[in-house]
Amino acid sequence: MVLEIVKPEEIEKRSMEIIASELGGRTWEEPRFSIIKRCIHTSADFEYADSLAFSDDAENIGVRLLRGGAHIVTDTKMAAAGINKNRLKSFGGEVHCYISDDDVIEEARRRGVTRAAVAMEKASALEGDVVYAIGNAPTALFSLCDLVRSGRARPSLVIGAPVGFVNIIESKEEIMKLGLPYIVARGRKGGSNIAATICNAMLYYGGR
Amino acid sequence: MVLEIVKPEEIEKRSMEIIASELGGRTWEEPRFSIIKRCIHTSADFEYADSLAFSDDAENIGVRLLRGGAHIVTDTKMAAAGINKNRLKSFGGEVHCYISDDDVIEEARRRGVTRAAVAMEKASALEGDVVYAIGNAPTALFSLCDLVRSGRARPSLVIGAPVGFVNIIESKEEIMKLGLPYIVARGRKGGSNIAATICNAMLYYGGR
Repeated sequence: MVLEIVKPEEIEKRSMEIIASELGGRTWEEPRFSIIKRCIHTSADFEYADSLAFSDDAENIGVRLLRGGAHIVTDTKMAAAGINKNRLKSFGGEVHCYISDDDVIEEARRRGVTRAAVAMEKASALEGDVVYAIGNAPTALFSLCDLVRSGRARPSLVIGAPVGFVNIIESKEEIMKLGLPYIVARGRKGGSNIAATICNAMLYYGGR
Repeated sequence: MVLEIVKPEEIEKRSMEIIASELGGRTWEEPRFSIIKRCIHTSADFEYADSLAFSDDAENIGVRLLRGGAHIVTDTKMAAAGINKNRLKSFGGEVHCYISDDDVIEEARRRGVTRAAVAMEKASALEGDVVYAIGNAPTALFSLCDLVRSGRARPSLVIGAPVGFVNIIESKEEIMKLGLPYIVARGRKGGSNIAATICNAMLYYGGR
């Protein structure tokens, strides 16, 4: 076995070099390039070079929001766990995930809807700038669409990256029609890890 | 937009039907089939149908271990967050993740190694059956190899699913040579979500 000898602090840098090399010269303006590379880094899946869709200037809007203290709402504990909360806190933001709250669980059961959908309604009470990072539940995105259309929520940015097979593609296409800033992983792929890594890419941009 | 109308409790079932259908008739014995389907469900990536490698009877060993109260050690908080801890606890097990412990951080810095490597050393003090679920750090797998070869650790099962570009493939190939039960996502792909979902597939097998 021949291992590449790389110091811990060099592993990420070396990984990014390999990714850039295998992209074969394709580049994007920053911070979009960082977001794309980090999604590939997290998944080892080069499809993200083509599937990530950005509304006009969304990546710069995201960086400004997070540096300005915006909060992040996630649909899963996994996405919340993956976000660099110390970094977010240094700017003034926090991560909120209501999916396991007793009141959310109870209300979802009573209404026969998903916990993710109810969690979005609960999140709409947050004040100030909020970035929604959705990596699992298409129903979270549909719920957000309803909340926006009825004027009950106004996300500053939506990261739409649910993964799976049932209404996934539709949920992402729908969120892109709202006229809000978005970063969306189109198609079936995505995940809590992708939602978290897009947040981290924007949190890290401009130096750690 | 035409949505498929599916009740919350039916979404997973419908997803699994779509996955089985797109596998075009390929099947595996249970519980291996469940593990493969759940990895595809978590990633929307059919490569897992071919990349998952199981040592002899590893999937049944895993089910028995978890139902028997084995503990799970993860290398990331994300993997820990993704594992159904209520289900695990109902059998007597707990999830342990030492990556953010102060003593682990300090020792990793002092020795110039990764926190993941030191976290595995700390985990080796756990008694009883332990399933290691590694979804991020190849250095966690290398550390485990060293611990096993020097007689300091004896994992009951290793789930090897780091993702990335530097020494990832090598770390997985190395863990498969130890003579321990393993479930490994060969190649570059994997992730904390994959490590967690393999645990959950085994936890759910045989009925929720």
